Amino acid sequence: MGGVSTVGDRVDRVPKQDRSRATRQRLLEAAVACLAEHGWAGSTVSVVAERAGVSRGAAQHHFPTREDLFTAAVEYVAEERSTALRALFPEGAAGDRRAVVSALVDLYTGPLFRAALHLWVAASNEEQLRPRVTELEARVGRETHRIAVDLLGVDESRPGVRETVQGVLDMARGLGLANLLTDDAGRRDRVVAQWGLLLDEALG
Amino acid sequence: MGGVSTVGDRVDRVPKQDRSRATRQRLLEAAVACLAEHGWAGSTVSVVAERAGVSRGAAQHHFPTREDLFTAAVEYVAEERSTALRALFPEGAAGDRRAVVSALVDLYTGPLFRAALHLWVAASNEEQLRPRVTELEARVGRETHRIAVDLLGVDESRPGVRETVQGVLDMARGLGLANLLTDDAGRRDRVVAQWGLLLDEALG
Repeated sequence: MGGVSTVGDRVDRVPKQDRSRATRQRLLEAAVACLAEHGWAGSTVSVVAERAGVSRGAAQHHFPTREDLFTAAVEYVAEERSTALRALFPEGAAGDRRAVVSALVDLYTGPLFRAALHLWVAASNEEQLRPRVTELEARVGRETHRIAVDLLGVDESRPGVRETVQGVLDMARGLGLANLLTDDAGRRDRVVAQWGLLLDEALG
Repeated sequence: MGGVSTVGDRVDRVPKQDRSRATRQRLLEAAVACLAEHGWAGSTVSVVAERAGVSRGAAQHHFPTREDLFTAAVEYVAEERSTALRALFPEGAAGDRRAVVSALVDLYTGPLFRAALHLWVAASNEEQLRPRVTELEARVGRETHRIAVDLLGVDESRPGVRETVQGVLDMARGLGLANLLTDDAGRRDRVVAQWGLLLDEALG
């Protein structure tokens, strides 16, 4: 054990770690794209390995099970998106809460949300997936809430502020769902503009 | 060609129509329950027929294809829920907008939403299902919006009112999604209470 046979998260501590990390990253990105396009039923380790241009053995070295691969993929891409969102507002929201609401909603309209949705829905019927996705969803949800509070520049110790922010993220999630089958961008922009105004007033 | 061989919606015009309608109704209710519990992959006409205590042939007489059965089921139960929601407020909202928001959110937390979610997500990857579910979603969405406007007693010709109501329904949908893997009732009640307040202020 140890050395090059180490699997999963520890693989990046072994030699050739840069190449190994690049392979891992390619697999994670391919997994999210695959899940978004083909859903859970059409997403296997083999399909992702082929898409990433990695051998099936190498893929299984990084991710022993299908559940490992897809939960890691959604988490990885969610972290990437969180980092990108913070980078959009390097000085904080700077008073433009409507821009922040709009950027938060954008988190829920791309391939990441679509992939996460497929994973959630599959987890609701598959016992081996459910606890892992439940835990993942809680972790990603907490981090998104933290970013929303920071970027909106609000004080959660004030009564109602926490629930106001949570409602915004619930609305964002609902807008993402409304975008699943049709391009809902026009309606979404109008809803976001209106609620951006209302929230700005509500948050003072 | 006419008479007892007529299938689908017209079956209730033939003799024995009451028994036929009862059978149809049992199939529709069983289909929603099946979809909510087992997802699209686990939901076939045979499984639903058995659950409803109806022969496979009788089920196929009413619903020639799997798509016919499950889209009709989600539409039927959505109509039942809409009727029940209107019945909750026979005199309109009577000023209690927070109660209306709470009742609207309840639409998205039961087996119907779970079933509809499975159907939407399946439709996003299945070409033969997609146009039918897209049309169904639009129809159910319009009806829910109409009920929300009526029960909230608001005037959509005022600027921003339409988008305010839409945002509440998007939030409700997002709260439904947050309830998929865990019981989110405690958090949801607090969000609904706060957004009920915000909405009451916004709508004046």
